Amino acid sequence: MGNISLFVGLDVGGTSMKAGVVDDNARPLCAVSLPTEAARGQIFGLERMCETIRLAIQTSGARLEDVKAIGVATPGTMDIPAGIILDPPNLQPWKNVPVRQYVHDVFQLPTAFQNDGNAAAFGEYWGGVGKGVRSLVLFTLGTGIGGGIIIGNQVIEGEHSHGAELGHTKIEMTHPRQCGCGRWGCLEAYASATAVIKRAREALVEHGGKASVLAAALAKQEVGARDIFLAAAKDELARKIVEDTAYYLAVGAVNLMHTIDPDMVVFAGGMIAAGKPFLERIREHVRAMAFPVPAARTKICYARLGSDAGFIGAAGCARQLHLRDNPAAN
Amino acid sequence: MGNISLFVGLDVGGTSMKAGVVDDNARPLCAVSLPTEAARGQIFGLERMCETIRLAIQTSGARLEDVKAIGVATPGTMDIPAGIILDPPNLQPWKNVPVRQYVHDVFQLPTAFQNDGNAAAFGEYWGGVGKGVRSLVLFTLGTGIGGGIIIGNQVIEGEHSHGAELGHTKIEMTHPRQCGCGRWGCLEAYASATAVIKRAREALVEHGGKASVLAAALAKQEVGARDIFLAAAKDELARKIVEDTAYYLAVGAVNLMHTIDPDMVVFAGGMIAAGKPFLERIREHVRAMAFPVPAARTKICYARLGSDAGFIGAAGCARQLHLRDNPAAN
Repeated sequence: MGNISLFVGLDVGGTSMKAGVVDDNARPLCAVSLPTEAARGQIFGLERMCETIRLAIQTSGARLEDVKAIGVATPGTMDIPAGIILDPPNLQPWKNVPVRQYVHDVFQLPTAFQNDGNAAAFGEYWGGVGKGVRSLVLFTLGTGIGGGIIIGNQVIEGEHSHGAELGHTKIEMTHPRQCGCGRWGCLEAYASATAVIKRAREALVEHGGKASVLAAALAKQEVGARDIFLAAAKDELARKIVEDTAYYLAVGAVNLMHTIDPDMVVFAGGMIAAGKPFLERIREHVRAMAFPVPAARTKICYARLGSDAGFIGAAGCARQLHLRDNPAAN
Repeated sequence: MGNISLFVGLDVGGTSMKAGVVDDNARPLCAVSLPTEAARGQIFGLERMCETIRLAIQTSGARLEDVKAIGVATPGTMDIPAGIILDPPNLQPWKNVPVRQYVHDVFQLPTAFQNDGNAAAFGEYWGGVGKGVRSLVLFTLGTGIGGGIIIGNQVIEGEHSHGAELGHTKIEMTHPRQCGCGRWGCLEAYASATAVIKRAREALVEHGGKASVLAAALAKQEVGARDIFLAAAKDELARKIVEDTAYYLAVGAVNLMHTIDPDMVVFAGGMIAAGKPFLERIREHVRAMAFPVPAARTKICYARLGSDAGFIGAAGCARQLHLRDNPAAN
């Protein structure tokens, strides 16, 4: 009766923040969401985080005494051990925000702090497609490419909170594309949703085809990578863009397989709506490029938790903190 | 008196094997070496390993009862948890060699088994340039490029014994060079000692200069990367080859910094004889390519243990095994 352990996870994004109460088996009891409204400043932002956490607890119907710890995941440059967001490009004008301390002081509960890519990876590892594996690498494919690496229950945060910046590993030297980060040849400049659209536009300029299906897709008001993937069913040029994207992602996967050699490589984010055939193309390229043993044995999968991965993973980090301080609870 | 703990490390290479007795503080009491003579077959090879271990113990003057465990490091494809070398390109015609079991049965001591790149990384971490860091990535620059990753006392072996195959991460897609492994665009195809000589020969063909310093260097009977580095002092083309090599190695370093984000990146192997100016070039490229925080804080260093790193690291793995089974000994 008194033995129920629940954890609140909060995933702060540039547009909205999502929270949920998660049980000891990675099952969310609820999920709630509020707009981030970063422009209103970081004091507002910190209060909004607490509001979202409170709303999640209320919505779940959990008793406060069953909530053992809170986990918060945020984007941007950060100092994970210090619990601080430093200078997040997606949360301007926030700067040096002491997230962990603030949330801890408000709720008086042990509070974990984690990068959002790392948290999503931990979510898929703890309660998603990676349930049962020992190690996992996650690529999140969105506007940019984020990542997370889990080895044996441990998040690879890095010594300077820069672990798993997988979108910013370099895959091209001769004709490197410039990345949003200002550097050159990054995986993100090739295979993020933004890059897919950019490459499609360039291809259209280069190869013509103004009246093509791809041209029509790109003429939409708000083009998404999804539109390019849809166009690929009927358009040769779009098909080439998609095929190249699968190849680039396979290069990213193989590089991680030859570095970490995980049980599983997981792709997440809006782009996985492209479905099974796209995943099959990635797998084929991986098999062709990796050493035989990892090529045959590493599972290449899509994520399962969708946009819940971040808060579930954050709750998982909270649980780890709780178990560390209460070893008997394990 | 009865509390001395010593460990034997053995590093098996394609040409010779080196062993030493190492104390609890990573200090070798001695180092001995015997030719591997792989061509004489794996039974001979296993006996030669035991012979080298025996010779190390004799040479050190250690009492047998003070030797608590043995560690063996080998090259090639392997199954680390099983303690088996599978199909090592540098130890032909060996196949499926049960190294750990054999050595264990002969000496009746706990026996650790590790990949040679991993062992060298652990050596530098435990007793070399990385003493005191929490995490470290090692690149060994020789005929090929090997590697090792240590995070918090743990060797990242990978789930299929393919962790830290750093020479076979892909850095080029547009005009990829073919690697010795048969694949394309691998770091090893650009920055190993073999690749440096190959690129120098190609450059000479492309740009002429038959009477140049570089041409003279390449006309030697047994050219080493060292000759290209020496020529660079007086030859523009050789200088370009060296400069490109520093850049390629920096790409490798940055990719690991954006993946593992270690405290330290270490370069080892014959090529570091190139000295301080070459290391400075690598560091400058790293600073230009990495994110500001890791660029400023990650230490980029040369290894310190030379060809002793492998057996010292193997002894360190033996010590870990001993401490795991005798926690009170720590």
